[in-house]
Amino acid sequence: MSEITLGRYLFERLHQLEVDTIFGLPGDFNLSLLDKVYEVPKMRWAGNANELNAAYAADGYSRIKGLACLVTTFGVGELSALNGVGGAYAEHVGLLHVVGVPSIASQAKQLLLHHTLGNGDFTVFHRMSNNISQTTAFISDITTAPQEIDRCIREAYIYQRPVYIGLPANLVDLKVPANLLSQSIDLSLKPNEPEAQEEVIELIQKLISSSSNPIILVDACASRHNCKFEVEQLVNKTQFPIFTTPMGKSTFNESHPRFGGVYVGSLSQPEVKQFVENSDLVISIGALLSDFNTGSFSYSYKTKNIVEFHSDYTKIKQATFPGIQMKEVLQELLKVVKVPNKYIPTPIPIIKQLDINKFEPNSPLTQEYLWTKVSSWFEEGDIIVTETGTSAFGIIQSKFPNNTIGISQVLWGSIGFTVGATVGAAMAAQEMNPNKRVILFVGDGSLQLTVQEISTLCKWECNNTWLYVLNNDGYTIERLIHGMNATYNDIQPWKNLGILPLFNAKEYEAIRTSTVGELNRLFDDVSFKIPNKIRMIEVMLPTMDAPPNLIAQAKFSSEANEN
Amino acid sequence: MSEITLGRYLFERLHQLEVDTIFGLPGDFNLSLLDKVYEVPKMRWAGNANELNAAYAADGYSRIKGLACLVTTFGVGELSALNGVGGAYAEHVGLLHVVGVPSIASQAKQLLLHHTLGNGDFTVFHRMSNNISQTTAFISDITTAPQEIDRCIREAYIYQRPVYIGLPANLVDLKVPANLLSQSIDLSLKPNEPEAQEEVIELIQKLISSSSNPIILVDACASRHNCKFEVEQLVNKTQFPIFTTPMGKSTFNESHPRFGGVYVGSLSQPEVKQFVENSDLVISIGALLSDFNTGSFSYSYKTKNIVEFHSDYTKIKQATFPGIQMKEVLQELLKVVKVPNKYIPTPIPIIKQLDINKFEPNSPLTQEYLWTKVSSWFEEGDIIVTETGTSAFGIIQSKFPNNTIGISQVLWGSIGFTVGATVGAAMAAQEMNPNKRVILFVGDGSLQLTVQEISTLCKWECNNTWLYVLNNDGYTIERLIHGMNATYNDIQPWKNLGILPLFNAKEYEAIRTSTVGELNRLFDDVSFKIPNKIRMIEVMLPTMDAPPNLIAQAKFSSEANEN
Repeated sequence: MSEITLGRYLFERLHQLEVDTIFGLPGDFNLSLLDKVYEVPKMRWAGNANELNAAYAADGYSRIKGLACLVTTFGVGELSALNGVGGAYAEHVGLLHVVGVPSIASQAKQLLLHHTLGNGDFTVFHRMSNNISQTTAFISDITTAPQEIDRCIREAYIYQRPVYIGLPANLVDLKVPANLLSQSIDLSLKPNEPEAQEEVIELIQKLISSSSNPIILVDACASRHNCKFEVEQLVNKTQFPIFTTPMGKSTFNESHPRFGGVYVGSLSQPEVKQFVENSDLVISIGALLSDFNTGSFSYSYKTKNIVEFHSDYTKIKQATFPGIQMKEVLQELLKVVKVPNKYIPTPIPIIKQLDINKFEPNSPLTQEYLWTKVSSWFEEGDIIVTETGTSAFGIIQSKFPNNTIGISQVLWGSIGFTVGATVGAAMAAQEMNPNKRVILFVGDGSLQLTVQEISTLCKWECNNTWLYVLNNDGYTIERLIHGMNATYNDIQPWKNLGILPLFNAKEYEAIRTSTVGELNRLFDDVSFKIPNKIRMIEVMLPTMDAPPNLIAQAKFSSEANEN
Repeated sequence: MSEITLGRYLFERLHQLEVDTIFGLPGDFNLSLLDKVYEVPKMRWAGNANELNAAYAADGYSRIKGLACLVTTFGVGELSALNGVGGAYAEHVGLLHVVGVPSIASQAKQLLLHHTLGNGDFTVFHRMSNNISQTTAFISDITTAPQEIDRCIREAYIYQRPVYIGLPANLVDLKVPANLLSQSIDLSLKPNEPEAQEEVIELIQKLISSSSNPIILVDACASRHNCKFEVEQLVNKTQFPIFTTPMGKSTFNESHPRFGGVYVGSLSQPEVKQFVENSDLVISIGALLSDFNTGSFSYSYKTKNIVEFHSDYTKIKQATFPGIQMKEVLQELLKVVKVPNKYIPTPIPIIKQLDINKFEPNSPLTQEYLWTKVSSWFEEGDIIVTETGTSAFGIIQSKFPNNTIGISQVLWGSIGFTVGATVGAAMAAQEMNPNKRVILFVGDGSLQLTVQEISTLCKWECNNTWLYVLNNDGYTIERLIHGMNATYNDIQPWKNLGILPLFNAKEYEAIRTSTVGELNRLFDDVSFKIPNKIRMIEVMLPTMDAPPNLIAQAKFSSEANEN
């Protein structure tokens, strides 16, 4: 085969990077492109229920596999996906958004096609997406198209951001040389400037040498930019205590003896707060410092000795070193780092755990009980997805086993995100290891925004999924911010246990738990752990019950709105 | 009360224009604003299931009442709505999109709040919406805020397009003078330039005088820009035969003796095509000439005598008269128009109707039977909503009773639109006359994109709704364009009749019809016509069965993609 179609070229390139599920919906400007998905061995077309859900699913998939692809159609399809794409931009998630656009001839004639604004402007949606993309391409020339596709894939992967490609319907069947595929896309980072890097390492080493109780604080970008291994090495080599942010949770093994807990400024456990803030050197890796990730910016380090490693710069105290990317500089640092001889690894803070044995079996379930108890049910390798609201805040008090992957949209915080993300994560897990469990915690309010995506789980028989629906009768997070009893925070109650059968789930279980005893029995049941069906567990919780860190955060947010 | 809050001011202004249902979702930057909805007597907060659905609902409401308001929250909420807003832009629907944005202080400090891209840019979403808005305002000053709100409402109403308002969370509680409300917003169009208008009328009169078989062709913008009455007067005064486009269907009374049918270029009934194209003067009113509205631009008038009335200009043959708006010029024309003495009203074309009596009761239902039979079940005043796909094409062969309102998104064509639009239309109907029926025809594929909005119908007990779900096992319109047997055009089958009970509908009926006899019995049942419950009727249809005009259109679209 000396030539292949441009459409197939795109999907072969993605397959080379182990992107083997493509998310999206058919639409008449992308149909011919979709034919090519089926030509690539092992590749599948997810066929989501709507475009926003598809974008969320692609985001979830990318958080597991490092890159994802979303295909939509011109105008209607692509605009529906924008909130999901915006989330991938905010949270550093590599995502290729391929839009099937009208043929070059239709564009040239400025035809008033359906799916246009009726004004002959074919560039308007591209312009809109440009605001939330690392880069874009609106392909018009078959000769340069393969390079443009390569460039877009490269940037989406390297920068871990969305990239937009507009692909005209008539181009996807044109041929390009097949041998272009034999050279893989260069995904290497450009090297750091050696002189600046040397200076950075020296400065960091100096700070380390003169510190007596340094800590490491790891955040989401360390995972997204593929530095988990370097972080682990740094801890092992230095024995410095390590903490994560809420967004960084699962970036580091919580069973490691040097893991100290989750730091969220003033919303931290007191022992963690004191420990972190009394440190004399903070080594921050991959920070994404949003309000919900920092207890509304309530960090109060006593020290001014702060080192920040980022994907595109390094900062030491007040000095910024543009272009010094964390992966390489961490690797170099690991080669030379010396812990002062006098350094005695400080014992990590001991956090008082809730005594779950004190709860009677017939006590109604509470958030506090759930988030403590569930730790013992998690298993190594689980993917744990928590929705903005009580789940994302509650999960901070749970302990993750090693090699867990946590998915939570702490910065962007779009409710409904996790239902889609669970589909993407579950399909990624199916590709990697069919026994890998994907566990969703979503509120009954958030579930309503994206419920139909559960149908995609049913279609693909994602029997590796557990869907915990926390039913607290409405938008509790909003109630805590404003409008505690306002009817705008109510939702129409649904018969949630009917959702899986409605969507024709093949193997499924749908159960309700209301008491401590019911939840305990479930977690004690070994058959309940086996990934052999889709499970929905409706967890009944009091309307006004919420994790204490959420209550405190909501107060901060409310004040910020009113000032 | 000498002062009121800015938030209340906004809703009082909307109430003055009979906008009494506000669509959207709560989010922490709009909560305090939502409190004010409840302060305005008779106003209600719809509380939709997600933002895209809310935008669709607002669009449907506006098509009934002339204006609608959608409230979302910053970033996540507003981006989710953009496809719905884009549809309102394309199809000339007046829509105020109010976005609750972070407080002025948060913006000034460039805080990395949740729902931002994490880069301190608070203007990016405003810039994105600007591409699909008539005008926008990002309110920052309380003193000019009321005038800005008035300006935005005025432009949304006059131009029948979406308008974007960003309203900071801290401003909605600040006070403005209450007496600003005593003067209503000036919604009058600016007068046409008299000299140009006079010239236009003379030229049109000349063309009329020398014509022997003129026709009037009325399209969607005649409804949207409030010229239905003028069109009716023109027909009564001239007795010229009148035709509608697919988008214009329901703009004119189909029982009127001078109504000739629907003209769609080469996809018209042959009698209609011949009649329209042989005319020697075409008077086009409110045209929106997209591919699906014109049989892929297959108009082939024999005459060059064409007059086009638009909302912002008039065109006579090749001469354009900018600023000559149709409403005023039609009113002026009506005062003076003279039909030539020799003019003999041509008999309108007689279209051969399908003989529905030839179908046996046990024959399986077909699209052809359904769209003919249903005409007899429609009633005066019905609102009939048809989804892009077999429904929007099939409905063209149905006959509407007088005062019907048809809703169909022929130009924008976003699948799933009609489920949301039905909610908006049903809530508008509840306000106007609780016996006004709203009838939806949606395919099983499109339904899946927006199904949760049926929950909003249940919440508000919209017992004036009939939801016909045409179950043909997937995306038939896409199959006809490309990929007849491709699995990407399949959907996960659902137990559709379980949807209403799952959403806790109070009074409801869910039934399936598969044969001619079953459908006939339903339509013969007088109790089935009474608006006393929400009804879902799943109509089983063959997968590859489609209205002939859709089959022809799909062929055109497929060719346009490949060329």
